[in-house]
Amino acid sequence: MKVIYDLDVLKPHEPGNDLIARSLKSIEGVKYVAIKIDEIDNVTTSVFITVQGTGDLELDDIKEKLEELNCALHSVDKVYIYDDDWLTDNGP
Amino acid sequence: MKVIYDLDVLKPHEPGNDLIARSLKSIEGVKYVAIKIDEIDNVTTSVFITVQGTGDLELDDIKEKLEELNCALHSVDKVYIYDDDWLTDNGP
Amino acid sequence: MKVIYDLDVLKPHEPGNDLIARSLKSIEGVKYVAIKIDEIDNVTTSVFITVQGTGDLELDDIKEKLEELNCALHSVDKVYIYDDDWLTDNGP
Amino acid sequence: MKVIYDLDVLKPHEPGNDLIARSLKSIEGVKYVAIKIDEIDNVTTSVFITVQGTGDLELDDIKEKLEELNCALHSVDKVYIYDDDWLTDNGP
Amino acid sequence: MKVIYDLDVLKPHEPGNDLIARSLKSIEGVKYVAIKIDEIDNVTTSVFITVQGTGDLELDDIKEKLEELNCALHSVDKVYIYDDDWLTDNGP
Amino acid sequence: MKVIYDLDVLKPHEPGNDLIARSLKSIEGVKYVAIKIDEIDNVTTSVFITVQGTGDLELDDIKEKLEELNCALHSVDKVYIYDDDWLTDNGP
Amino acid sequence: MKVIYDLDVLKPHEPGNDLIARSLKSIEGVKYVAIKIDEIDNVTTSVFITVQGTGDLELDDIKEKLEELNCALHSVDKVYIYDDDWLTDNGP
Repeated sequence: MKVIYDLDVLKPHEPGNDLIARSLKSIEGVKYVAIKIDEIDNVTTSVFITVQGTGDLELDDIKEKLEELNCALHSVDKVYIYDDDWLTDNGP
Repeated sequence: MKVIYDLDVLKPHEPGNDLIARSLKSIEGVKYVAIKIDEIDNVTTSVFITVQGTGDLELDDIKEKLEELNCALHSVDKVYIYDDDWLTDNGP
Repeated sequence: MKVIYDLDVLKPHEPGNDLIARSLKSIEGVKYVAIKIDEIDNVTTSVFITVQGTGDLELDDIKEKLEELNCALHSVDKVYIYDDDWLTDNGP
Repeated sequence: MKVIYDLDVLKPHEPGNDLIARSLKSIEGVKYVAIKIDEIDNVTTSVFITVQGTGDLELDDIKEKLEELNCALHSVDKVYIYDDDWLTDNGP
Repeated sequence: MKVIYDLDVLKPHEPGNDLIARSLKSIEGVKYVAIKIDEIDNVTTSVFITVQGTGDLELDDIKEKLEELNCALHSVDKVYIYDDDWLTDNGP
Repeated sequence: MKVIYDLDVLKPHEPGNDLIARSLKSIEGVKYVAIKIDEIDNVTTSVFITVQGTGDLELDDIKEKLEELNCALHSVDKVYIYDDDWLTDNGP
Repeated sequence: MKVIYDLDVLKPHEPGNDLIARSLKSIEGVKYVAIKIDEIDNVTTSVFITVQGTGDLELDDIKEKLEELNCALHSVDKVYIYDDDWLTDNGP
């Protein structure tokens, strides 16, 4: 099983995107992390984070790690869960 | 046979998208679930849900599961049904 | 030979898209059915229906089935007919 | 050699797109026919027709068949002619 | 080596696009010809012509053929020249 | 593991993009460098730089190299980190 | 190693794009040349030139050749440098 989360996250300017990406990548089951800046404010930065992983990836582990990094999970914009043997391009 | 439903669903803020995705994924015949937030209101969230599966996937099972989760199926926006051996990219 | 019809159909709210898709799929020669909602009115719903199949697929069979379901075929927006051995992506 | 014609055709409401597509498909050398409605007027319908075929496909045969069906070839919008062994996706 | 020319050509209404395409295709080294109507005026038609071929394809041969057909080469909009063994999709 | 950084960088007109690209390419772990001009000012040029590499690629090495070249790293717009065996096109 | 330059070049109307493309193609290490007209002025033409090649391709050789042809290199809009074994489509 594969799991993908698209997350809307509010973060202080520090820690930087590189450290957040590497920290999330270290969570069990995580295979892929992408962070993209959405908007930069005076104090905070709003970022879109995509985390992809295997079936044992838990949203709670991601939340916990984000909190350790002083980041707030604003919303879970998209969730994809599907079997490995299900070709994702076989739909129209 | 493959079946794909694109659903327009109204949900309370809780349960979250992750739980809904995992619950729908557990239905018989379901191979793929995607949930995307459309609009967030004070009390409700409007989401687009795509459920893909094999021929024994039943829309009624999806409806029932959504109701258990306090979600209302607003409309069935798209339905795709096709044979496994029919290449979906062979049309123009 | 492969045949594809893109149809503009007017239907009452009932029967639902799922039943219409499954009914059309049961016609001889039909390999693929897709239904997408275009516009929802007070009494009727306008839908786009794509039916793909083998050479023995007849438009009249589709019309007849739609009428049984109280749906009116408004127009045949697109028709594709081509040989199986003609690669559809070999054109520019 | 492969030949592709994109044609702009004016037709009366009858015969329908299905009959025109099947008639054009029966011409020697024709491998693929696509008809798409452009605009529907009171008396006439303007359609885009794509005819693909082998090197012995003749535009005159298409014209003649269209006239038999009371359709007028308004313009030949695009013409593609290329060798079978020329990969069409090898250009930038 | 492969050579591709995108040409902007002004032509009288006659000869038609089909004849021009077939004439250009007969030039030595030409493997692919595409003609698309840009604008139709009272007396002239402006067309985009793409000619693809092998390394021995000469722009002068194309010019000469176009003049024989009473067509004027307005401008050479794009030129591509590349080695056969250079994968064109290996660039970003 | 693969690492990708999309960087927003402010540079003086000299050194040129070619030298910056070749300098970044020489960093350990760097496999791919792309530089695109965003905006040219009187004194400075704003460029987007993408650096791709293996897991041992360090953002600090890139920063250091940029400073040697009198370039200022304005922001780290995107970070991607993922396992080599994770197909990046297997997500929706 | 592969190198790609996207260049913004100002040229007189003569020499034509064909001659410039063939001249650039003759430079050592050049594998691919594309020239596209951007804007035509009374006296000059602004063109976008893409030159792709192997690692021994030098920007100075391109500049020199352009000057021989009375063309001025206005700016180096993009530079890509990457290892041959680095799949360029493996990034997101």
